Amino acid sequence: MHKKIVTISREFGSGGRTVGKLVAQSLGIAYYDKDLVKQAAKATGFDERFIEQEGEYAPASSVLAYAFSARGAQGAMNGMSADDYLWAAQYQMIQELAEKGPCVLVGRCADYILRERGDCLNVFIHAGKEARMERIVRLYGETDKSPEKRLEEKDKKRRVYCKHYTGRDWGAARDYHLTLDSGVIGVEKCAEVVVTLLRD
Amino acid sequence: MHKKIVTISREFGSGGRTVGKLVAQSLGIAYYDKDLVKQAAKATGFDERFIEQEGEYAPASSVLAYAFSARGAQGAMNGMSADDYLWAAQYQMIQELAEKGPCVLVGRCADYILRERGDCLNVFIHAGKEARMERIVRLYGETDKSPEKRLEEKDKKRRVYCKHYTGRDWGAARDYHLTLDSGVIGVEKCAEVVVTLLRD
Repeated sequence: MHKKIVTISREFGSGGRTVGKLVAQSLGIAYYDKDLVKQAAKATGFDERFIEQEGEYAPASSVLAYAFSARGAQGAMNGMSADDYLWAAQYQMIQELAEKGPCVLVGRCADYILRERGDCLNVFIHAGKEARMERIVRLYGETDKSPEKRLEEKDKKRRVYCKHYTGRDWGAARDYHLTLDSGVIGVEKCAEVVVTLLRD
Repeated sequence: MHKKIVTISREFGSGGRTVGKLVAQSLGIAYYDKDLVKQAAKATGFDERFIEQEGEYAPASSVLAYAFSARGAQGAMNGMSADDYLWAAQYQMIQELAEKGPCVLVGRCADYILRERGDCLNVFIHAGKEARMERIVRLYGETDKSPEKRLEEKDKKRRVYCKHYTGRDWGAARDYHLTLDSGVIGVEKCAEVVVTLLRD
């Protein structure tokens, strides 16, 4: 198959980031996720907190975006919305990271952004609600909102973001080479499957 | 994971049936596909040709159904449409086959029919249009219709059938434990991944 880049899209609470980390460790290749956020912050002048919140969510909070954004960034935006400007910056950065060599990229619609390359294995990790609710409470703790509500809100935002910027229906099997239910298959086993396919 | 039954749903021309056969051979378990059709024919009294055409396609051709159906079957249908009667017969048969022991079931919405069991690994095999067009021409030959048209028609029928009888969107990653792009990953490798997960 000869793929050298892995993109991972994932439902909130499915353990997709952990799958990505395990794959990168196992293959000894670069892993981009939070680092990507930090680099985006530097490139755009946006505050990191804003990018972490808006970097892969719905383009619906421009007022908030301006409140968070640095003056320098506003000056360079040439009339684009803050979200569109951030999308453009992330788009370019993901293409540059892919050029550097084999890596795992989690989130940020990297599968779509790198769709012309031909050397990416595009993976989607999902799981049933029960498994995801258990996971987010265990990893991130309780909040005022019910776990179910937190899943719904975050998944909805990712779905809207994906549709807006890529025109795709988030989570349609045809858009990925591999999709895995981590709740049934297990996070470690999901990583093993990806590694097996990459090594071929 | 401890699953003992594999259900395979597949896009037309994706090689999903071949994946199923390879998995069954490799694990030494039963494989049901055309045999299912023959058994359905016996159970309902319908002509085999009708079941092969309508067994997993849209419930839209009742006139054709009656034209093909045997008198005995019509007598037993108690006012159900031919398609609904066939669905009910296949539903029962698939449940009986699953009771017999480990097996691979291709098509016929077996994933949905067996959804309460908990011992099924539900797989969806798909591929890009180019790969599927090449495959159907190689395996089934040319016809008056373009390969693209043949794919579109058959996929549409399966999608409508699935929605009608299960309420599900055919090919949504969340409804399967594993989905694979056989055009990129390769039919043999797809079978290997399934076997690896089953052996765990």
